[in-house]
Amino acid sequence: MSNRIITISREFGSGGRTIGKQTAAVLGIPCYDSELLEKIAKESGFTQDYVALAGEYAAGGNWLSQALSARDYQGHSYQDDLWAIQQRIITELAEKESCVIVGRCADFILKDRADCLRVFIHSDMEHRAKRIVEQYGERPDSPEKRLRDKDKRRAAYYQFYTDMKWGNVHNYHIALDSGALGIDKCVEILANLY
Amino acid sequence: MSNRIITISREFGSGGRTIGKQTAAVLGIPCYDSELLEKIAKESGFTQDYVALAGEYAAGGNWLSQALSARDYQGHSYQDDLWAIQQRIITELAEKESCVIVGRCADFILKDRADCLRVFIHSDMEHRAKRIVEQYGERPDSPEKRLRDKDKRRAAYYQFYTDMKWGNVHNYHIALDSGALGIDKCVEILANLY
Repeated sequence: MSNRIITISREFGSGGRTIGKQTAAVLGIPCYDSELLEKIAKESGFTQDYVALAGEYAAGGNWLSQALSARDYQGHSYQDDLWAIQQRIITELAEKESCVIVGRCADFILKDRADCLRVFIHSDMEHRAKRIVEQYGERPDSPEKRLRDKDKRRAAYYQFYTDMKWGNVHNYHIALDSGALGIDKCVEILANLY
Repeated sequence: MSNRIITISREFGSGGRTIGKQTAAVLGIPCYDSELLEKIAKESGFTQDYVALAGEYAAGGNWLSQALSARDYQGHSYQDDLWAIQQRIITELAEKESCVIVGRCADFILKDRADCLRVFIHSDMEHRAKRIVEQYGERPDSPEKRLRDKDKRRAAYYQFYTDMKWGNVHNYHIALDSGALGIDKCVEILANLY
């Protein structure tokens, strides 16, 4: 039987990572999330923190995104190197085994594979703010600002490298509101669909 | 027990209406689609065809949309009358009984009801073109043009009356690609969620 992949794109604080992990556990297949960062870090020689940061600062306007995306005389940046490594690692993973892959534009990278279920997890501000305060111990004074900032960065990164709109309903086979439906229901739906 | 409503917004040719009908049948509740047009026609005094047309020609640029949305000296059009009647009928239906409602911006009209599951059904051009030729006997020479035209009209109507983007993932609890997942699987997911 050929490999079957689930890619999960998610808004920060929507519980997409948890849904990915739990769905993978139910199906008895691996889930790549921070493991992916590790792999990319190892191959690129950058630290894992740097890889995580680079994944959120493409085409932004601040000093960090400027620094990360600074281009040499050939119009080439460290971020482009990372993107190439990321593409190769994700493609190899999908060749190797059935798995769940969270984030890193895996939906786009694997878009031509017929055996890939593309999932988007989102939720409203209220649910996400509550979740990041409870789960990640974020400072509760302005979680909304932090969410908006994260959303903006993920959308910019996605658009820069894929030339597609992040969160556009047409890019996904299924999009779920984890706040309204609940994490467990989302896991159940995805595991049943697989 | 309070009423529970499923609203289905759908791209033309995605099978959203069929999914609505079948889900309602599984759940043993009514599905309002053309029945809704009938009700609106009856109350407004317009014909059913006129009501159907008016639902697709808001804010467009051609002679028909101009005529339909022509405003009197108080800035008021026939379409606005229809919208008011539609709003009232959909709100009354949701008060009266559990049901599935297809189209007519019911998702927006009922957006403040906690007991309403908002669904979006979409599919790629290829699946939809195949479907409208097979199911509706559309002329097979340029189904894509017809689909793009219908998409544009529905999006314009939705945006005009709701001030929200049609097909934006955040407006729905669940969005399903009926071409990739299949009609039966969509029905199963929605019936299970209810």
